Amino acid sequence: MSETRDIPLDELARLAHAVLRHNGFDAEHSRAIADTVLAAEHDACHSHGIYRLIGIVQACRDGLADGCAAPDVIDHAAAVVKVDAQGGFSPLAFERGLPMLIDKARRGGIAAMAINRCFHLTALWPEVERLAAEQLVGLAMTPSHAWVAPFGGKRGLFGTNPLAFAWPRPDQEPYVFDFATSAIARGDIELHAREDRALQPGWALDCAGAPTTDARAALEGAMLPFGGHKGSALATLIELVAGPLIGDLTSEQSQHFDAGRGAAPFHGELILALDPAAFAPDATDRDVAAERLFDGIVEQGARLPSQRRRAARRQTLANGFVRVNAALVDELNRLID
Amino acid sequence: MSETRDIPLDELARLAHAVLRHNGFDAEHSRAIADTVLAAEHDACHSHGIYRLIGIVQACRDGLADGCAAPDVIDHAAAVVKVDAQGGFSPLAFERGLPMLIDKARRGGIAAMAINRCFHLTALWPEVERLAAEQLVGLAMTPSHAWVAPFGGKRGLFGTNPLAFAWPRPDQEPYVFDFATSAIARGDIELHAREDRALQPGWALDCAGAPTTDARAALEGAMLPFGGHKGSALATLIELVAGPLIGDLTSEQSQHFDAGRGAAPFHGELILALDPAAFAPDATDRDVAAERLFDGIVEQGARLPSQRRRAARRQTLANGFVRVNAALVDELNRLID
Repeated sequence: MSETRDIPLDELARLAHAVLRHNGFDAEHSRAIADTVLAAEHDACHSHGIYRLIGIVQACRDGLADGCAAPDVIDHAAAVVKVDAQGGFSPLAFERGLPMLIDKARRGGIAAMAINRCFHLTALWPEVERLAAEQLVGLAMTPSHAWVAPFGGKRGLFGTNPLAFAWPRPDQEPYVFDFATSAIARGDIELHAREDRALQPGWALDCAGAPTTDARAALEGAMLPFGGHKGSALATLIELVAGPLIGDLTSEQSQHFDAGRGAAPFHGELILALDPAAFAPDATDRDVAAERLFDGIVEQGARLPSQRRRAARRQTLANGFVRVNAALVDELNRLID
Repeated sequence: MSETRDIPLDELARLAHAVLRHNGFDAEHSRAIADTVLAAEHDACHSHGIYRLIGIVQACRDGLADGCAAPDVIDHAAAVVKVDAQGGFSPLAFERGLPMLIDKARRGGIAAMAINRCFHLTALWPEVERLAAEQLVGLAMTPSHAWVAPFGGKRGLFGTNPLAFAWPRPDQEPYVFDFATSAIARGDIELHAREDRALQPGWALDCAGAPTTDARAALEGAMLPFGGHKGSALATLIELVAGPLIGDLTSEQSQHFDAGRGAAPFHGELILALDPAAFAPDATDRDVAAERLFDGIVEQGARLPSQRRRAARRQTLANGFVRVNAALVDELNRLID
């Protein structure tokens, strides 16, 4: 086990802000990015937590991402908001477009927000949770880099293409899921490689397109989609609607743009918001039916997808600190020297 | 192999119409239902073809479905059409709401159609293909009956909850998929039971909630979602947005309503339409990027999801007939005696 350190929440927030402010991000980007990675850290999702600050800072230091880009919010159509992130990271672009997305969803019943030209390294669930907090149903998706082979194929074409969904629940946290359409997260493959552990069958292919359980061979080859041809179809949908539909890059195009630098992926994002009040007027019937569904899942011993994260969040808030990798904290501290 | 018969297309269409007209369906419902099942039959998807007429007719003979219900199209919100099917089958309700859905999608960029109180036994892909024919991106989903256990659970709660998607392509058939979020179609489990074949592991549970490869035990027990916890989350999304969101039944509620009769499921349906022209003005860029994605799939030996159906359709149209189960044709002919 690597050494850990318990960092009080306010100290961690100050560190995250300082890292961003000292590395070319303006106050607004720093706050938006820090909020998103801290939310993940509070939920004990370290892979999307302060660890991501390293890649985010690197993209700015390399002159790729613009830490002071002013997102341009465009009232594009009656039910469509577009936000041109202008080469900045996605969290501030999301925030800036959010009020118009909410307004359009409430007026029309459904609305879409397309974020263009953004760097993306943060989790989607904090975004759909923001929609649920407004009593809207939220759905978000992005491409990434062409690491995932289509089902029946041999080489990477799709991104890990996450899909996040939130459903507001009365008097409690929303129902939320956020999953990659790859069989496993890319970070998990990297972790297996570092620890010399075998992958599970069905996760990856080697560079010749043959199935492999060797993590290093997988990193040279391709990951596989979850769920066979169905997961592959879902990954295709996300490529299309969060790529060409919104006039932005596919995962393959994003990887070409990256040109081997291994920087944060640069592409678009699609967010949908649906207003339950506009679809059926009886909120009680809706909530009773939805809660019955959730009860039906939990009663038989299955899990709701956010249970683990929520438990971690409650624990974090009760503790007042998060336990993080000590070497990571040292590395972040070096970024503000 | 069971005996087959080659039926000319016009003769099959006359048979389908006659079966419906002689069993309580008015001319409009007969045409809409026949069009949908014939489209599936032309694509050699016999499970969604004329075979479905038996269950459709039965629901009407039993006094459950109304073969003459007039769908009520409601301009519900700026981006939402509601269609009250009034207890009829879904195809005519879809058709009646379609012009308003198309109009709203073109005006606003994105729009939703909620069909309520419909009986549902037909495939979704003919519906999303109709949207693609209008140069819109289409997405359709419905619950069914509570046959599918959540991942990690023991008993049926979700429907087979299909998700269908269509993307218009220039000068050729759209990209289309339509898959159940269960690991396998319910009809396939029934077929395995009839033929005493073992199921694949991961498809089903017995009535005690234990994994089984016995098809009969599976029919008494529950099916499993595709793709583990991710497929289970997607099935939950479909339950929620095509059920409580639109003020209609979940798969469990639909099964309660059915009260053991085993009739066609009665519930709602959600269809989304997105207008590419409203998201990004450059159609050429969009088409080039999307076609590059499809080429990237096919070039490496993977399939596009509709390739098999499309090849069957071309063959059917070239032949001018379809090859169908002779006993089924006899059974349909008895329905017009």
